[in-house]
Amino acid sequence: MALEPHTICPHCGRDAPRQRNPFPTVDVVVYDPARGVVLVERANPPHGWALPGGFVDLGESVPAAAVREAREETGLDVVLTGLVGVYSDPGRDPRFQTMSVVYAAQARDPLALRAGDDAARARFWPLDGLPAPLAFDHARILDDFAAALARFAVKSS
Amino acid sequence: MALEPHTICPHCGRDAPRQRNPFPTVDVVVYDPARGVVLVERANPPHGWALPGGFVDLGESVPAAAVREAREETGLDVVLTGLVGVYSDPGRDPRFQTMSVVYAAQARDPLALRAGDDAARARFWPLDGLPAPLAFDHARILDDFAAALARFAVKSS
Repeated sequence: MALEPHTICPHCGRDAPRQRNPFPTVDVVVYDPARGVVLVERANPPHGWALPGGFVDLGESVPAAAVREAREETGLDVVLTGLVGVYSDPGRDPRFQTMSVVYAAQARDPLALRAGDDAARARFWPLDGLPAPLAFDHARILDDFAAALARFAVKSS
Repeated sequence: MALEPHTICPHCGRDAPRQRNPFPTVDVVVYDPARGVVLVERANPPHGWALPGGFVDLGESVPAAAVREAREETGLDVVLTGLVGVYSDPGRDPRFQTMSVVYAAQARDPLALRAGDDAARARFWPLDGLPAPLAFDHARILDDFAAALARFAVKSS
């Protein structure tokens, strides 16, 4: 079902199967009460709107990867404020198996938002008016995030 | 600094560098108020006492890996009860780069504890009387876990 990424053997130049474990990735829910959450429109398949995120590289911690990916894909300098969860259903990415650590974050300057690497567009969306469908399992992640906010919400009457 | 695990090229039989991302791993804090936390004495290097844990395999979710590793290394059937955190300092494992998702858990039957795969011994240790040093960053993880318990603690006077 999931494609296995390959690496090139440096000795014979042919493909060697590479993946034996899921790839560690990060996704970031950049939230602003007045604006909603930041989504990027993916320039590469699978297309659609998605949370900013990507692979954790060798030499970096998971939070460092989250801050880097947010900056690369949205132009935003973010502060991580919490752990939304770890999402690791083996079928969550149609290309290969990933497991994502998802952080909540705030932008130091929301007005700095711009589409960066791998993104065609980037914008804030209100939590009650998200585009559909979202890529990967990002609708579920945002459902969980919105449910957490709702549990704390104070009803104004 | 960190060793790069290698894979064997299926075409020429030689080593090909493999790791381009940290390996996703899990660790489990199996806690019982009367007994403390379960640690296993590692049979393989790096030696020492450690939380039960290991690699996330292809085809399994991160929670599934945590339940499997706890069973394999301690004989315990555990219920995951919370997310302690994600530990991903690039130098946390002296052999290669890992990032660990750490769960809190309860054993369905603490008396079923026994040393399993990769473990020489397995036992409960009181949080205020842990062996030292612990392998990897497990002392820090248990510090964080104990600090969380302490924040909720009701002083008996």
